[in-house]
Amino acid sequence: MAILFKNVTAVLMDGSHTVLPNAFVAVEGTGITSVGTSRPSGDFTREIDGRGGILMPGLINCHTHVPMTAMRGYGDGHDLQDWLNNFIFPVEARWDDRAIRACADLGLMEMIASGTTCIADMYMHTQTVAQAVADAGLSANLSCGGVFFGEDFSPAACPDCRSQEELFQTWHNHDGGRIRVDASLHAEYTSKPGLWEWTADFAKSRGLGMHVHISETRREHEECKSRWGASPIRTLAKYGVFDVRAIAAHCVWTEPEDWAVMAEKGITAVHNPVSNLKLGSGVAPVPDLMKAGVNVALGTDGVSSNNTTDLFEDMKLAAILQNGVRHDPMALTAWDALEMATANGARALGRNTGTIAAGKDADLVLLDPAAPNLVPCHDAANNIAYAAHGSNVILNMCRGRVIYENGTFLTIDAEKTRREVEDYAVPMLFRKGQ
Amino acid sequence: MAILFKNVTAVLMDGSHTVLPNAFVAVEGTGITSVGTSRPSGDFTREIDGRGGILMPGLINCHTHVPMTAMRGYGDGHDLQDWLNNFIFPVEARWDDRAIRACADLGLMEMIASGTTCIADMYMHTQTVAQAVADAGLSANLSCGGVFFGEDFSPAACPDCRSQEELFQTWHNHDGGRIRVDASLHAEYTSKPGLWEWTADFAKSRGLGMHVHISETRREHEECKSRWGASPIRTLAKYGVFDVRAIAAHCVWTEPEDWAVMAEKGITAVHNPVSNLKLGSGVAPVPDLMKAGVNVALGTDGVSSNNTTDLFEDMKLAAILQNGVRHDPMALTAWDALEMATANGARALGRNTGTIAAGKDADLVLLDPAAPNLVPCHDAANNIAYAAHGSNVILNMCRGRVIYENGTFLTIDAEKTRREVEDYAVPMLFRKGQ
Repeated sequence: MAILFKNVTAVLMDGSHTVLPNAFVAVEGTGITSVGTSRPSGDFTREIDGRGGILMPGLINCHTHVPMTAMRGYGDGHDLQDWLNNFIFPVEARWDDRAIRACADLGLMEMIASGTTCIADMYMHTQTVAQAVADAGLSANLSCGGVFFGEDFSPAACPDCRSQEELFQTWHNHDGGRIRVDASLHAEYTSKPGLWEWTADFAKSRGLGMHVHISETRREHEECKSRWGASPIRTLAKYGVFDVRAIAAHCVWTEPEDWAVMAEKGITAVHNPVSNLKLGSGVAPVPDLMKAGVNVALGTDGVSSNNTTDLFEDMKLAAILQNGVRHDPMALTAWDALEMATANGARALGRNTGTIAAGKDADLVLLDPAAPNLVPCHDAANNIAYAAHGSNVILNMCRGRVIYENGTFLTIDAEKTRREVEDYAVPMLFRKGQ
Repeated sequence: MAILFKNVTAVLMDGSHTVLPNAFVAVEGTGITSVGTSRPSGDFTREIDGRGGILMPGLINCHTHVPMTAMRGYGDGHDLQDWLNNFIFPVEARWDDRAIRACADLGLMEMIASGTTCIADMYMHTQTVAQAVADAGLSANLSCGGVFFGEDFSPAACPDCRSQEELFQTWHNHDGGRIRVDASLHAEYTSKPGLWEWTADFAKSRGLGMHVHISETRREHEECKSRWGASPIRTLAKYGVFDVRAIAAHCVWTEPEDWAVMAEKGITAVHNPVSNLKLGSGVAPVPDLMKAGVNVALGTDGVSSNNTTDLFEDMKLAAILQNGVRHDPMALTAWDALEMATANGARALGRNTGTIAAGKDADLVLLDPAAPNLVPCHDAANNIAYAAHGSNVILNMCRGRVIYENGTFLTIDAEKTRREVEDYAVPMLFRKGQ
């Protein structure tokens, strides 16, 4: 099936910040076949008239826990460790696959409706999450965050090792690589050196990326230094955890020595500004990371700490937050934030997307040209980063397939999903004695 | 005309944080006549089934410059003083009434669609802005910010004095008080003591409120102290500027001595978190202001520094920003932010709105119960403050009149407005030799 976008303002997200007015973008199969200002030859099954609206790469959400939707607003107003230990972890023990599936579908609906085409998700019940992603049609790097609190580590004593192996066997490179599996450690403070070594070896031997929470809170960062004599990044690096393509979520309390290691090893810092502010974790040193040569991408984190998965919101906050706290209106630009949400995310996840060019995956998002908040448009990047809302997305195409259009979900039963979350998953959250 | 809202989750915004499930709210004329969980007696011209969705007071945007929409994204990336002096002020000199009207209508469309029912607007060409507000159907406290750079002040030498007097004569208490006029000084740094005295007297003698920019940037705050030996609040207070109900926009660099004066005089601080971050102005000391007993309300500022007028966005940022920069997840709560956007705003503007109760103005907003980002709803306040977007608003009622419903503007010609902004106002922005 060949599709032609016409009459769009194409924000290519190439290195030169090209914005093509009155552009044509042709798609065939899962990929983009041509981009330009004159109509390409050939016949098209469908022509989509953008009416002058912005066509941009789909957003890449590099740190999510998509099934947490049922916990939206649950246990708010506590610091991260208290919230995790006394609110989130206990209820997570009660989930079953049916609840996880409903909650994952709801989370994916939010993401799709707000222009996300690719995610890096770390959670549990990952087989179920993978099936939900497979059905929803977007792309994902999936991982089950490894946790081990025991004294004597062995892969047999750690259920997460088996889960990671099974996830890899079942889902890695599913549907031509639309779903990939990453290795994962939940975090330094929830695991031990035995698991770090195993996970590093698992990733290297299988050719996988790595997804880890890093230095989200001051307490986590400082306690790691007390325990191991070095920060989380430097501690885990010693065990080979970052000898593969890796994403480090949060990095709020990372220090210059950490940035040097991250730049050298090519570790991406995933900035989660909404979650970090809401939980009181702090403000990540994004301009310093960038200056040190670290790739910075963007994430929403789970809705339990955001409380949405609208990456446009995180993009805007990323764009303005550093200006405010550093008293410098140029600390980050609109383009910086846009790159974090697109091209940098693609690099972080090792994917052939994040820019609009022939040969790239056809992950594309069209914005409503008639939305009052996008009128006028002096500068498309500026309008995307500062003025757009996720609700301005009128079409979401992932790998050449339109999965959302004009408010309609084409791959998820929206009404059934809402009922399942409200009638099944939420009551399970509060069920006693489990 | 009597209207009944039924099957709504009513967030009353009373002092006790009441949330009424399965509530009925009855409206007659411009006011609310009853609120409760059983159906009121009487016949209703229309019954609106909220399908379990949240009904809340309309948002109150206490600091806006609504006609600046054509400058959305214009001159981005400069500090406030540079941006004002070299980008905004020069183009403002070129506006005519037709451009102002188109831009005001566009700004009001954005506000109405995202749940705002009342604004405090400070700008120029205010007669035209007033007509736009009158036609759009929402409520407004309007002011033309007084500016005077000359040496010898006299009311005759200051066109803004005449404009304020004319605005008062023409529009004050229009349509039963839906439009009110406030006195206004643009700021300390754009005026002189003669104008301060005149404006203080103008407000007192006419029984008007006062709207002033205060301590937005460190430079403004410090230069005022150098010039007059005291901060902007304390300098203007000496001239009687705050001897009436008053709103002070920004207050980013205010100090403990300022907070004491503000609490004593009942001056409202209007927090504009998006604008303050974007322009690099800083983070207002909101928890300190609240602790000092200052009423804190919320504003978007103009779209040239935001770049939207979706107050839900500012509400969320207000709710999470202090947590992040103070490393305290309880620095501000969801209820704090909600009060800033509703009840505190009503107090700031001297209006009988901002809460849902019999006898209050019927300024009401209904949220979409089916929006994925509002499912589930453990806590309505939490969902409003952290998860809702302006796009979740499916109905906006101002003073008993539905002015927006399911994406349709009932008082503004949306298509004509967009055309006027793009074809008339924007070209005027770039016209040479004016």
